[in-house]
Amino acid sequence: MNYGMIVYLLARVLQIIGMMMFCPFLVSLYYHETSGKYFLLCGVAVLLLGSLLVFLIKPKKNAFYAREGFVMTSLSWLLLSVAGCLPFYLSGEIPHFTDALFECISGFTTTGASVVPAVEDLSRCMNFWRCLIQLIGGMGVLVFMLALIPSTGGQDLYIMKAESPGPSVGKMAPKVRQTAFYLYIIYFALTALEIICLLLAGAPLFDSVCTAFTTTSTGGFGVRNTSLMDYSPAVQYVVSVFLFLAGLNYNFFFCLWLRKWKEAFGSDEIRAYTVIFWLSTALITYNIILNNDYGPEEGFRHAFLQVGSIMTTAGFSSADFDHWHAFSREILILLMLIGGCAGSTCGGIKVSRILIYLKTVKKELSQLCHPRSVKILKIEGRAISHSVLRSANIFLITYISIFVVSMLLISAEGHDFTTNFTAIASAIGNIGPGFSLVGPTRNFAFFTDLSKYVLMFDMLAGRLELFPLLVLLSPETWNRR
Amino acid sequence: MNYGMIVYLLARVLQIIGMMMFCPFLVSLYYHETSGKYFLLCGVAVLLLGSLLVFLIKPKKNAFYAREGFVMTSLSWLLLSVAGCLPFYLSGEIPHFTDALFECISGFTTTGASVVPAVEDLSRCMNFWRCLIQLIGGMGVLVFMLALIPSTGGQDLYIMKAESPGPSVGKMAPKVRQTAFYLYIIYFALTALEIICLLLAGAPLFDSVCTAFTTTSTGGFGVRNTSLMDYSPAVQYVVSVFLFLAGLNYNFFFCLWLRKWKEAFGSDEIRAYTVIFWLSTALITYNIILNNDYGPEEGFRHAFLQVGSIMTTAGFSSADFDHWHAFSREILILLMLIGGCAGSTCGGIKVSRILIYLKTVKKELSQLCHPRSVKILKIEGRAISHSVLRSANIFLITYISIFVVSMLLISAEGHDFTTNFTAIASAIGNIGPGFSLVGPTRNFAFFTDLSKYVLMFDMLAGRLELFPLLVLLSPETWNRR
Repeated sequence: MNYGMIVYLLARVLQIIGMMMFCPFLVSLYYHETSGKYFLLCGVAVLLLGSLLVFLIKPKKNAFYAREGFVMTSLSWLLLSVAGCLPFYLSGEIPHFTDALFECISGFTTTGASVVPAVEDLSRCMNFWRCLIQLIGGMGVLVFMLALIPSTGGQDLYIMKAESPGPSVGKMAPKVRQTAFYLYIIYFALTALEIICLLLAGAPLFDSVCTAFTTTSTGGFGVRNTSLMDYSPAVQYVVSVFLFLAGLNYNFFFCLWLRKWKEAFGSDEIRAYTVIFWLSTALITYNIILNNDYGPEEGFRHAFLQVGSIMTTAGFSSADFDHWHAFSREILILLMLIGGCAGSTCGGIKVSRILIYLKTVKKELSQLCHPRSVKILKIEGRAISHSVLRSANIFLITYISIFVVSMLLISAEGHDFTTNFTAIASAIGNIGPGFSLVGPTRNFAFFTDLSKYVLMFDMLAGRLELFPLLVLLSPETWNRR
Repeated sequence: MNYGMIVYLLARVLQIIGMMMFCPFLVSLYYHETSGKYFLLCGVAVLLLGSLLVFLIKPKKNAFYAREGFVMTSLSWLLLSVAGCLPFYLSGEIPHFTDALFECISGFTTTGASVVPAVEDLSRCMNFWRCLIQLIGGMGVLVFMLALIPSTGGQDLYIMKAESPGPSVGKMAPKVRQTAFYLYIIYFALTALEIICLLLAGAPLFDSVCTAFTTTSTGGFGVRNTSLMDYSPAVQYVVSVFLFLAGLNYNFFFCLWLRKWKEAFGSDEIRAYTVIFWLSTALITYNIILNNDYGPEEGFRHAFLQVGSIMTTAGFSSADFDHWHAFSREILILLMLIGGCAGSTCGGIKVSRILIYLKTVKKELSQLCHPRSVKILKIEGRAISHSVLRSANIFLITYISIFVVSMLLISAEGHDFTTNFTAIASAIGNIGPGFSLVGPTRNFAFFTDLSKYVLMFDMLAGRLELFPLLVLLSPETWNRR
């Protein structure tokens, strides 16, 4: 294990997060809030610590393999979370350390589950920080680092693999750094465009900025306790449209940019995502108009926003969907598990994996009847390689295993099955709200500390696609072989 | 498709089921019940129809491949269910046809979910028939046929594969017919032994016979509405012990018979089953003594019986476990999904598949750290072949797919998530009771006909390990290529 290089890269992460903390400090200056001083304090401390380490540690070897990539990624996310929660904790606005850490991990992983009883009681700079960490976490701080800091070895690909969502890393450019750069351009462009649209729709500036941060990152933190329920229909529609966009594979936008229309719209995953999205919206619209006393426009609007919010794993709410009809609720639970496209900022299992799964079943059925026929599984026009298939299967099994163990652990508290099931689905899929006790009008504060740590683990595991964290915990990783 | 051979074999199935109907008729003579005449009537009619078809149809070709095996197996189970439900329906003891069919499919598939409001109101011969069809369905009527009827072609292996539970058919003897014969000997020996033990424990003769039928078949139908709650502790312990035995791979008993002690006790699956079984029992015992006011003996007894009943997918109950603490309930839900050993009469995903899944995850973690290391997955001391691994993965995906679609279909009724989730888990895993509205003191009568047909499909799909029924419904099967 190349410890020198790992510590060096972690120090770089500290530098970035330290610098980021000056943003909410500026916000506090603008709004004349005294709690901004904690951001200045923490920012300077973290930046100094990082710089000191960068200055002191010169990695002797460049060797950097998959193992280092996983360990470094897991550790950097833990480090980010601890550093990022300090302002919440030190300012006393979130008085318990566990809660502050939970809120911060929920932010960085773009889950959006909150333990704050009333977010309006937080100062503006704290709310800004909550939304900013979702923006940072959405695309990944390490990918950001790759785009900025000159490469010091062969670590790029391994880090990108460990941090990026989806079964395989789509390469937009031949070099990892360039891909990371393009990703960030698309990401910031979407965010900027949404801010403008929200302002045009009549939302206040602060709300527009924060909501745009948490939409494109599919995070779902809001600056109001009622999430999006109190905003105008125009604002709700803007958010819904951008949620739909945020759930698309970023490769789509890149193809549009290069005017490769056929490649953009011909993608299997984009098509499947679109079909699932609008089919769910249609079914829920029909179901809630019939059973929940909504008018046609209102029903469609809530269904559109909720499907967008749950499928892209953001977690906003425009209505208390916990009181919808069982059919709509179960479609939403299913969407929680599916998630958005690979190569987006979404959590969940990802549409492309679901496609792979369904295609294997279809192939098996045909092979059972015609055992000697040869069929090749294809996705995006290319054959699915054995290793992608294998890792998709193992991903599913691991997802279920972590799910089951987590559920058993939090069930010790004695809450109902729906609460436990959807709390875990929500955490591991990086969604935010669930149903029953963790429904859209509730929050996660009532859990004991032990359960909160289980949920934190699930959020991180879900964000990093399970394996980096498991590798960190596996004894074999630390064997000196 | 060799239609001649399929019809011929289906006619043979009719003969067997017709003959079986004389058993409850004899019971009705003993208890002087008039409703027994329906068994005589149906038995003669079904037997005549079957014999007529056997007489008329002489298959021209012996060709019999996988496709024919799947189609024939699915059709024979549908035929069995329709024929078997006639006495319930014609006698008027279960007045609606859908309910009679549900009860019969629930019987043959050894699910044990009932729609009868009070089973004590049924005549004894009807109750005997309910339990007898579980005994028939447990080992499989086709396997029975293989053991009795001289083979007419190469169909044996394909039928056995389609009907037997588990990832691969364990061959006890070189010939399929001989294996089937040994299986039935073990099966009947266990049943006979349990009848004796139950009589010694003080249960009445009728109850002993019926309960033994539904224990070794892991069916779970009872002759009392309260399942096993009103029986003495001694009876409950006897049932629990036989449930534990019924969940073991029959290969185990065969090895004992041949005095291959090492092979019997060294099996990975038997060990894993035993560990899961007793660990769950211990955890639940501790949890319910702490939270549900049971004494130590009582707590252990209920935990033992419930774990046995749910893990082997029988579905008896000795206590209203729907009111147990959430932790115990969720362990039971997990056991519903796991099920017993392959090569037993249990439903569920099966312990051997769970072992395969966990081993792949462990291997993946190690390979992520050491990409160039070569590790071979082993189970029962042998390498897991690629095709077994693939089919185990596809099984899991198909299980989840059927689960999700079924849940969405029955959720249209608007019941709570726990009811829907556990009703489907219970049907597809062939268990019987679930939680909430389908808890151990309730029944499935309240579902609409549509939902009942969904549940019937799931029960059959679960019993036949998913694929035969899907092959029957796949358009490709019926292509004339």
